[in-house]
Amino acid sequence: MAESWVNDAARIGADLHLELSGPGGRRAALIRALREAVRSGRLAPGARLPPYRSLAADLGVARNTVADAYAELVAEGWLTARQGSGTRVAERTRPPRPAARTPRKAPPRARGPRHDLRQGTPDVSAFPRTAWLAAYRRALQKAPDEVFGPGDPAGRIELREALAEYLARARGVRTEPERIVVCSGFAHALRLLFGQDRGGGGGVLRGPLAVEAYGLGFHRGLLADAGVRTVPLPLDEHGARVEGLGRERAVLLTPAHQFPTGGPLHPERRAAVVDWARARGGLVLEDDYDGEFRYDRRPVGALQGLDPERVIHLGSVSKSLSPAVRLGWMVLPERYVDAVLAAKGEREAWASVLDQLSLAEFLVSGAYDRHVRRVRQRYRGRRDRLVGALAARAPHVEVTGIAAGLHAVLRLPPGTERSAVKAAAWRGVALDGLADFRHPEADMPPSDGLVVGYAAPSEHAYQAALDALCGVLPPP
Amino acid sequence: MAESWVNDAARIGADLHLELSGPGGRRAALIRALREAVRSGRLAPGARLPPYRSLAADLGVARNTVADAYAELVAEGWLTARQGSGTRVAERTRPPRPAARTPRKAPPRARGPRHDLRQGTPDVSAFPRTAWLAAYRRALQKAPDEVFGPGDPAGRIELREALAEYLARARGVRTEPERIVVCSGFAHALRLLFGQDRGGGGGVLRGPLAVEAYGLGFHRGLLADAGVRTVPLPLDEHGARVEGLGRERAVLLTPAHQFPTGGPLHPERRAAVVDWARARGGLVLEDDYDGEFRYDRRPVGALQGLDPERVIHLGSVSKSLSPAVRLGWMVLPERYVDAVLAAKGEREAWASVLDQLSLAEFLVSGAYDRHVRRVRQRYRGRRDRLVGALAARAPHVEVTGIAAGLHAVLRLPPGTERSAVKAAAWRGVALDGLADFRHPEADMPPSDGLVVGYAAPSEHAYQAALDALCGVLPPP
Repeated sequence: MAESWVNDAARIGADLHLELSGPGGRRAALIRALREAVRSGRLAPGARLPPYRSLAADLGVARNTVADAYAELVAEGWLTARQGSGTRVAERTRPPRPAARTPRKAPPRARGPRHDLRQGTPDVSAFPRTAWLAAYRRALQKAPDEVFGPGDPAGRIELREALAEYLARARGVRTEPERIVVCSGFAHALRLLFGQDRGGGGGVLRGPLAVEAYGLGFHRGLLADAGVRTVPLPLDEHGARVEGLGRERAVLLTPAHQFPTGGPLHPERRAAVVDWARARGGLVLEDDYDGEFRYDRRPVGALQGLDPERVIHLGSVSKSLSPAVRLGWMVLPERYVDAVLAAKGEREAWASVLDQLSLAEFLVSGAYDRHVRRVRQRYRGRRDRLVGALAARAPHVEVTGIAAGLHAVLRLPPGTERSAVKAAAWRGVALDGLADFRHPEADMPPSDGLVVGYAAPSEHAYQAALDALCGVLPPP
Repeated sequence: MAESWVNDAARIGADLHLELSGPGGRRAALIRALREAVRSGRLAPGARLPPYRSLAADLGVARNTVADAYAELVAEGWLTARQGSGTRVAERTRPPRPAARTPRKAPPRARGPRHDLRQGTPDVSAFPRTAWLAAYRRALQKAPDEVFGPGDPAGRIELREALAEYLARARGVRTEPERIVVCSGFAHALRLLFGQDRGGGGGVLRGPLAVEAYGLGFHRGLLADAGVRTVPLPLDEHGARVEGLGRERAVLLTPAHQFPTGGPLHPERRAAVVDWARARGGLVLEDDYDGEFRYDRRPVGALQGLDPERVIHLGSVSKSLSPAVRLGWMVLPERYVDAVLAAKGEREAWASVLDQLSLAEFLVSGAYDRHVRRVRQRYRGRRDRLVGALAARAPHVEVTGIAAGLHAVLRLPPGTERSAVKAAAWRGVALDGLADFRHPEADMPPSDGLVVGYAAPSEHAYQAALDALCGVLPPP
C-alpha cells in the first residue's frame, strides 16, 4: 500500500484540490495548477492558502517545492504573503465569472412587496430562537450515537411520542406513536399518500378525491400531477356540504377552520362525514393546518378523534413555528401505516433527524405550548386591529373567518374583487382574492372577497399595511 | 366579536382540548370530559393539568367550576393533588392501549447485528456534536428574520456560496452559487432529475441511462420506479468501459471511487466520457459520494471540472458528516437550473433551512475541513488494520479499492461468495457480497467478493469485527 499523506496533513488546514501534471518538474506543475486555480476563480480573492507543510504533505512533494511555488506566484502578483496572516490569493485577481447566469428572479418573499398581507406564513420575527436553540442543544447532547446513522422512516420515536401526547392533549387526537409518520410538511404527506407524479401509481390512496370548493391551488396542482382527480364540494355557512359525497374514495377537509373562507365544519357535518366514511369504506383527510390558533371560547377538536380508523390527521409546524423547520406528521389508521412507510423508503431520506429530536424536546419541555400561546395572543391582537380598522373606515365590508387562524376574509360586493386586487397590487399591497382559491369545477356561485393574512407583516409595518388595505377597498 | 380567552390564558400552562357537552351543568360536563381524557389515555399518567385559572379561561367557565371538577376527580382517584406540584393524572390510571399495533420490525440498524461491516454509513460516534452545535448557534443568531418564512427552493444563498467555494477548493468543481440546488440527499437529487414514480414523466431528464454494472440496487430501483431504463456498462481495472456508450442520453458514474469495486476512473476514460457527452449531446451524472475520503497521494478531482456544461455533480453530507443531516447538493449545467427548480417547487418543501444555514457556517468556519481530516485519519487507520489483519490471517485474499472511501472489496475464489456471506451471517457479521450490487443485465463475468465497510463499527468493537471477518473467509 502506498505511503499515505493523511498523518502529516491531518493537524492542519483545509483541503485544496490540485493536479500536478504536464511538462517540467513538480515545482512548475504546482505553479501552473495554483495559477489556474486562481485564474478560474476556484481559489477566491482573499482565500488563505494551506501552510507549506500541509500542502507538501497533501501532494507528496518537498516543502521547499511549495515554498518556491508560493514565492514565484507572489512575485507574479497572484498571491500575497504577509507576516502572521500566511499566504493568500491577491485581492485584485477577481476573475470575470465564466458563463455567468442572469440572476434568477427572487424567490417569492425575498424581496417582498411593500405591504405583505398574503396568507400562509407566520410572523417570521416571532420565531423562538432562544428556546429552539436550547431544545436543539439538549437534543444533541442527549442523543445516542445511533441518531447519526440511517434514520427510521417513521421518524424518531422521541418525536412521535411527544406528538402523540401533544396532539391528544391539545387537539383531541386519539393515537399512539406507532401510527404517526413524520414527514417534511403537508405537501410531502400528500405526495406520500397519492404518489408523486403525473400518471404515478405509486401512492397509497387513489382518487377521485373530494375537496372543498375553495382551497389551496398548490394542493390541487400537486394532486393533479399525481393523476388524482379532485371533485369540489360546495361550501355554505356550515362548511363543506359533505352530504354531496358519493363515490369518491376519500375527502380532504379543513374542519377546524375552512381554508380560506374561515368557519369550522358544523358538528352535524363532522358526524355525517364520518358516517359516510364508515358506510362507504371511505377515508377523511383532515388538514389541521392552523388548529392551534383559535381565539374564541369554542375549541374545535380534531375530527380524527371521532374515528381514528377513518380519518388521517395531517399537521405541521409551518404555521405554528416556521416553514424553515421542515417537519410535519401524519396520524394514520392502523391499516395504512405499513404502506405509507413503504412509500417513504427504507431509511429516512427527508426530514432532518436533528430537527426531529429538537422538536421533540421543544414539545416535551412545554416550550411549544408557551410559544403557541405567545404568538396566539400576538395574532389575536393583529386580528382585532384589522377588525377595528375596517369597522372604522370600511364598515360596509363584512369580515368573516376571524375566530381562528392567521387570515380573514373580507366579503366584497359582487363583481368588485378583481378591481380590488388590482388596486391593491398597484398600491403595493400583496394579497389574494377568493377567486384564486376556487376549484375550477366548483358548482356554487362565486363570491367576491379578499383573503387577508395578518401574520406576515412585522409588528412595526402592520399599521401601514392596514391603512393601505383600507385605501383599496371598494366604496359602499 | 366574542370575548376572547387568549389574554387570561396566555401567561400560563399548556393547551388542553376538552369539549363540554351533554346533560347536566358545566361542572358535570367538565368532569365527564376530564374523566374520558384520562380513561382514553389522552391525558397520560403523571401528566400535569393546567392551573384552574388557565383552564377556566380556556373554557370560559368560572374558576370554581374547574376547582370543583378537579376536587371531584381527585376524590374519585383519577387525579392527584399535591401542594407545590399542582394537579396531576394519577399514576395507576394507565389505560390498556386501544388497538395497539404489533410493534413494527426494527429499522435497519436500530438493533444492529453483532458485527456491522456493511458499507454506507459513517462512524456514528464521530459526529462533531460540539462544532456542529456551535455552527448552529451562530447560524441561528445571525439569521435575518426572513429565514423563518418560506424558503428559496434553490437553497439558502449562504450555503450555496459556501459550497461553491468548498467544492472548487477541495474537489476541483467549477461552479457559481447560482448553479447549485440544495436537496435532501442523493436519492432526492435522482428523483428531481428523473421524476418520482412509475411511469412518471415529471423529471427533468429522460432515460435510457447508462450505469455502472456494479452499483447500489436502491438507486436502480428508484430509477426503475421513475420509468427510467438503466443500461449497465461493464467495468474493468480502469473503471467503467465508457467506450460502450451509445444512444443513452446520460450516464451515471462514480468517477472518484467506483462504487463498490473501488478504483478511480482512468484519466483517459474521464476524457472519453466527456468527449462522448459533447459529441452526442449527452450528460454525465457524477455521484461524488465519498470524494473527501482518499488516503493516497493522488487526489482525484471532480469530473465536473472537465466540462461544467456536460456534467452534473452530485454530493451530500451523508458519508462525510451524517445521514441524520438531510442535506445534499446538485451542481448543474446552466441549462438545467430552471427545470430542476421547477421540479422542486415554488418554495423549499424539503431541506431544513436551519440545517442549511448551520452547514454553511460549518463550511465557512473551516469546521468541515477539520472534521473531514479527523475522520479521514480514523478511517485510514481502520483500513490499515483491515489490510493488516488480512495479510496476517488470510494472505490469499486480495483486497481492492482501498485507496479511498469507507469500504474495501475482498476478492474471493469463484463460486465462494455465497457461502462466505452465509457463514458471515451465521457468525453475526453483517456485510454484503458483490452479487448484491450487480446490475441484473450486466454483460461481464461475475466476480466473487465481499464488500466490507469499515466505518460502521464503533472503535472498541472494530477488532472483534475484524476477527470475526477473518473467521468466515474461505480457505486458500
